[in-house]
Amino acid sequence: MKVAIIMGSASDQPTVEKTVEVLKRFQVPHEVCILSAHRTPRQVESFVKEAQEAGVEVFIAAAGKAAHLAGVIAANTPLPVIGIPMKTGDLGGLDSLLSTVQMPKGVPVATVAIAGGENAAILAVQMLSLKYPQLGQALQEYKREMEQQVLETDREHGFQWNHQ
Amino acid sequence: MKVAIIMGSASDQPTVEKTVEVLKRFQVPHEVCILSAHRTPRQVESFVKEAQEAGVEVFIAAAGKAAHLAGVIAANTPLPVIGIPMKTGDLGGLDSLLSTVQMPKGVPVATVAIAGGENAAILAVQMLSLKYPQLGQALQEYKREMEQQVLETDREHGFQWNHQ
Amino acid sequence: MKVAIIMGSASDQPTVEKTVEVLKRFQVPHEVCILSAHRTPRQVESFVKEAQEAGVEVFIAAAGKAAHLAGVIAANTPLPVIGIPMKTGDLGGLDSLLSTVQMPKGVPVATVAIAGGENAAILAVQMLSLKYPQLGQALQEYKREMEQQVLETDREHGFQWNHQ
Amino acid sequence: MKVAIIMGSASDQPTVEKTVEVLKRFQVPHEVCILSAHRTPRQVESFVKEAQEAGVEVFIAAAGKAAHLAGVIAANTPLPVIGIPMKTGDLGGLDSLLSTVQMPKGVPVATVAIAGGENAAILAVQMLSLKYPQLGQALQEYKREMEQQVLETDREHGFQWNHQ
Amino acid sequence: MKVAIIMGSASDQPTVEKTVEVLKRFQVPHEVCILSAHRTPRQVESFVKEAQEAGVEVFIAAAGKAAHLAGVIAANTPLPVIGIPMKTGDLGGLDSLLSTVQMPKGVPVATVAIAGGENAAILAVQMLSLKYPQLGQALQEYKREMEQQVLETDREHGFQWNHQ
Amino acid sequence: MKVAIIMGSASDQPTVEKTVEVLKRFQVPHEVCILSAHRTPRQVESFVKEAQEAGVEVFIAAAGKAAHLAGVIAANTPLPVIGIPMKTGDLGGLDSLLSTVQMPKGVPVATVAIAGGENAAILAVQMLSLKYPQLGQALQEYKREMEQQVLETDREHGFQWNHQ
Amino acid sequence: MKVAIIMGSASDQPTVEKTVEVLKRFQVPHEVCILSAHRTPRQVESFVKEAQEAGVEVFIAAAGKAAHLAGVIAANTPLPVIGIPMKTGDLGGLDSLLSTVQMPKGVPVATVAIAGGENAAILAVQMLSLKYPQLGQALQEYKREMEQQVLETDREHGFQWNHQ
Amino acid sequence: MKVAIIMGSASDQPTVEKTVEVLKRFQVPHEVCILSAHRTPRQVESFVKEAQEAGVEVFIAAAGKAAHLAGVIAANTPLPVIGIPMKTGDLGGLDSLLSTVQMPKGVPVATVAIAGGENAAILAVQMLSLKYPQLGQALQEYKREMEQQVLETDREHGFQWNHQ
Repeated sequence: MKVAIIMGSASDQPTVEKTVEVLKRFQVPHEVCILSAHRTPRQVESFVKEAQEAGVEVFIAAAGKAAHLAGVIAANTPLPVIGIPMKTGDLGGLDSLLSTVQMPKGVPVATVAIAGGENAAILAVQMLSLKYPQLGQALQEYKREMEQQVLETDREHGFQWNHQ
Repeated sequence: MKVAIIMGSASDQPTVEKTVEVLKRFQVPHEVCILSAHRTPRQVESFVKEAQEAGVEVFIAAAGKAAHLAGVIAANTPLPVIGIPMKTGDLGGLDSLLSTVQMPKGVPVATVAIAGGENAAILAVQMLSLKYPQLGQALQEYKREMEQQVLETDREHGFQWNHQ
Repeated sequence: MKVAIIMGSASDQPTVEKTVEVLKRFQVPHEVCILSAHRTPRQVESFVKEAQEAGVEVFIAAAGKAAHLAGVIAANTPLPVIGIPMKTGDLGGLDSLLSTVQMPKGVPVATVAIAGGENAAILAVQMLSLKYPQLGQALQEYKREMEQQVLETDREHGFQWNHQ
Repeated sequence: MKVAIIMGSASDQPTVEKTVEVLKRFQVPHEVCILSAHRTPRQVESFVKEAQEAGVEVFIAAAGKAAHLAGVIAANTPLPVIGIPMKTGDLGGLDSLLSTVQMPKGVPVATVAIAGGENAAILAVQMLSLKYPQLGQALQEYKREMEQQVLETDREHGFQWNHQ
Repeated sequence: MKVAIIMGSASDQPTVEKTVEVLKRFQVPHEVCILSAHRTPRQVESFVKEAQEAGVEVFIAAAGKAAHLAGVIAANTPLPVIGIPMKTGDLGGLDSLLSTVQMPKGVPVATVAIAGGENAAILAVQMLSLKYPQLGQALQEYKREMEQQVLETDREHGFQWNHQ
Repeated sequence: MKVAIIMGSASDQPTVEKTVEVLKRFQVPHEVCILSAHRTPRQVESFVKEAQEAGVEVFIAAAGKAAHLAGVIAANTPLPVIGIPMKTGDLGGLDSLLSTVQMPKGVPVATVAIAGGENAAILAVQMLSLKYPQLGQALQEYKREMEQQVLETDREHGFQWNHQ
Repeated sequence: MKVAIIMGSASDQPTVEKTVEVLKRFQVPHEVCILSAHRTPRQVESFVKEAQEAGVEVFIAAAGKAAHLAGVIAANTPLPVIGIPMKTGDLGGLDSLLSTVQMPKGVPVATVAIAGGENAAILAVQMLSLKYPQLGQALQEYKREMEQQVLETDREHGFQWNHQ
Repeated sequence: MKVAIIMGSASDQPTVEKTVEVLKRFQVPHEVCILSAHRTPRQVESFVKEAQEAGVEVFIAAAGKAAHLAGVIAANTPLPVIGIPMKTGDLGGLDSLLSTVQMPKGVPVATVAIAGGENAAILAVQMLSLKYPQLGQALQEYKREMEQQVLETDREHGFQWNHQ
């Protein structure tokens, strides 16, 4: 069980760190690298091959602007590819989002929210949980924790409703 | 192995039929139903439970406008949920896309292109292929076929380049 | 007479505080809570039931991004639901706005401006004023005050026109 | 009990007819008129006064492009005003939506979806139901019917799931 | 000869000050006031009447969000009305721009760029120049000065081209 | 008294015909021509000069996409220039609108709605009315007619309100 | 001297035919093929190599939605790459445009207008004209012809201005 | 061999400096100037002529908002023109982008990303490389350096994959 995370530029790291944190919590082995669809096309391709041979089962790609990274990976593997559209300074990430999600027939990218580092990880864990049942358990626990956190926050604010 | 496909309205059927066609091609058992996040919230919830008990491993939800269907399903299951944002008559589907993809931390929806019925199915097959290796084979064959189709079309147009 | 205000996340509180302030001014009893459509779907549902039993007559929901909170509440109650689309860091709130306002036939959400905390309260008071005539009086006074404030500001700037 | 529906132009009638149909179903007395915020400003103003004296409790305004009609009415009455942004031929209704919903502090317009004729009526009925309890009953029945229609459609399509 | 400048809120003043500065440079008499289309509808209307009687020949209105101010003035006068769409914190002024420019047939608003305070003034001067020929002279001089400023800046940067 | 109307392409003629019709109604002499900012830059420039010498007092320019025509004319004359952003087949005219309205400091274009042929004419008449008082009379009559037309339409629909 | 034109799908052919027509007029040798960045990544890569060896000096790529084709080619060649963003049925081509133009530092795509088939060819000819002076002559003639066509159209419409 | 860089305003200089830096690296002679399409139309035109006579082979224009500068230059020369749409404070540069890229048939502008100063230079070098083969060599080296930089960054982050 392994997840490969690729970011298009070092500036994407704060977002990718959130992905890593969630994967750690679920004890999902993962590797991170910086590779650019446009500046290192050869390496992206060979990386996808190596990664598959190394047992990677899900790819996560974070990229901004004309964000082709996830699409290029998806073109080179039959494995599921998750795309994180990065926020951009001018168009807010609308460019990254459309470049990531609007993939043509036959080559999907599973797109999460703009800068959705955590959700890319959760989605990867959900995919892996089909094969690794312990992750399904962990996800249910995660859902319960999220639920508790919300209720906790609610209580801390001293609001008057009592939700069980 | 089973995929559940839910559409928010009968008008989404042409798109969902493309999803069904692809799943059939990959011999992935699936069930289809029409349920609305807003008009039948109770049924969506109980449907998700039943579906999980019936062995569903991936959900696909197609909905338009303030497209909450995929998000509501994702809130109720730890399984992966794929969202198809439907094209809309006024805003072209930008509303559906943003309502589907911009999910908050902790509850991802794997979003495909606007009206991307086929890609939702491919993505589901990719997810299932982690557990069912025969699907991985089938996906590679599918990729080869797509490749051949493109090259075939290229040849039919009598263009002068020879691509192997 | 009671208004229930639900926010999707603690970060929505500055906006919700403006709602609360206006409701206080109109002496409209209200309760506030933090509940997430996606992280605490069960609690949202049971909360809506409890709130109705507790005499709530109008719901106000503040949420951002794929803002489903108002829609989920509207799906579970025949009472009027007011939605406040939160400003978002990437798309400025266009995502929240479309996710809140573009509701399907049969299940409206009364949407106010992005981050329109005060206006959500005014709208709730307007709805309640149909039943509680004293609120109608108070609203007319509020309108007069707004008018006076604008004229006051105008005068303070020492402009030369005299508006009565 | 009375609802006043104002449309900015005769071309808005197909949308307004849906509003009327729903109000008829709920037996809510209503009057319709065509008045333009920009071409008949004096009449809009006097109409709002007359309407209030005639017992109107909710206003519904349908307008497109730089859609000021709902806002102008809201400026002239303390009663709730519902805005229907019309679809436009060039920008799809994004202009109407933003012109209707982005109201300044103090003067809300309860905005429904682009061309949301039915939902404007439902929202008006929900507001009136606070005062007229029989409408609350009717709304619950309406919700049940919608639910049944969805399940009916689902069954007609011969899908295999059984939802109760 | 007189220009009336109306802003919807005191926060629009920095933009309006640029308008005033340009009008001063052209020695065009002007008056400024703060009036809101939604909070002081009665005063806007009476102000337009008074202004016309006081010899105002061009109106300039600055407003943001659902920016109805220019449109409301245009509805009440046959004189030309110039609209300045204010920049907004969430949508950048796209809402103000569409609410100002997309006026219906028969009631135009002469719209300038988002936050285009200076250009509103220039446009007013251009309109007045049809009647007051000295302004036409002044505008030509203004154009020459702008030209010189650009060339000056160019020279200051020590660039190598010589433009006459 | 003369208005010059320039369209960027023969396909803009249906919109420009509406401009012409309104100018005819107000008996404003006008000339129409087809000239492109990009394909006939020299002619646009010399045309602006000739037009000024021929007594033109207002320019109206209709252009689509990267709509520079109005801006180029404004760069070459101190007279007021009205821009009509044409609707486009792909982006609905948002490109034309932004290219026309977002002019830099010092060189305004008085922009009307997308495809707003009539309003460009009305605005030109409003500008000319400052100098030619008979046009002010005609504009007031035009406003009354518009008012009557709306009320007429309202009556024809047999609605029950009586507006004077 | 040779130009390679690649389209992502057979449906892009009407646009590409316009490119071909213009290249024929300028007698620029060219080859056309259909290759998909996502369905035939290997062939795109080897095609770029072959094309370069065959003497191609400029690439033109037409693609829609998450339009990566031009970017992928640009990643694999130091030669100039021109991108034609295709119009799309849902978002009008905004997705194609942003995916084509928003390229990261170091790997530009020379982007033309949405569906700008002719302009892609003109731009290619302009680039080639740096090396092949006869094309510079041809381009000047082309500009003159465009100019004449506009003036011809102007005359045919019987307009009264005389432009030389 | 010479490139002319024109910026519409002194505020565009930080972006243009990136262009200059890249051109210096490739030892491409260049000249920079500040000229405005709207404030110095005559100078832009004569500058284009002079520049051509001075041996300029590629033009680069940086402008924001209703960014006509590149289009105006393209209208006046048969040489290739590269447009850099500047980021804007309100709409993020969407206005500049559409005004630059959506050029009409016959007059292309080779548009790069919003604020894409470096890429404008690379694109110019690519165009020039058709004629000056040493630039082709330099571009290949540049591509290798970019590749190495990415791999270097990757290694510095201590990631575990080994890419050659």
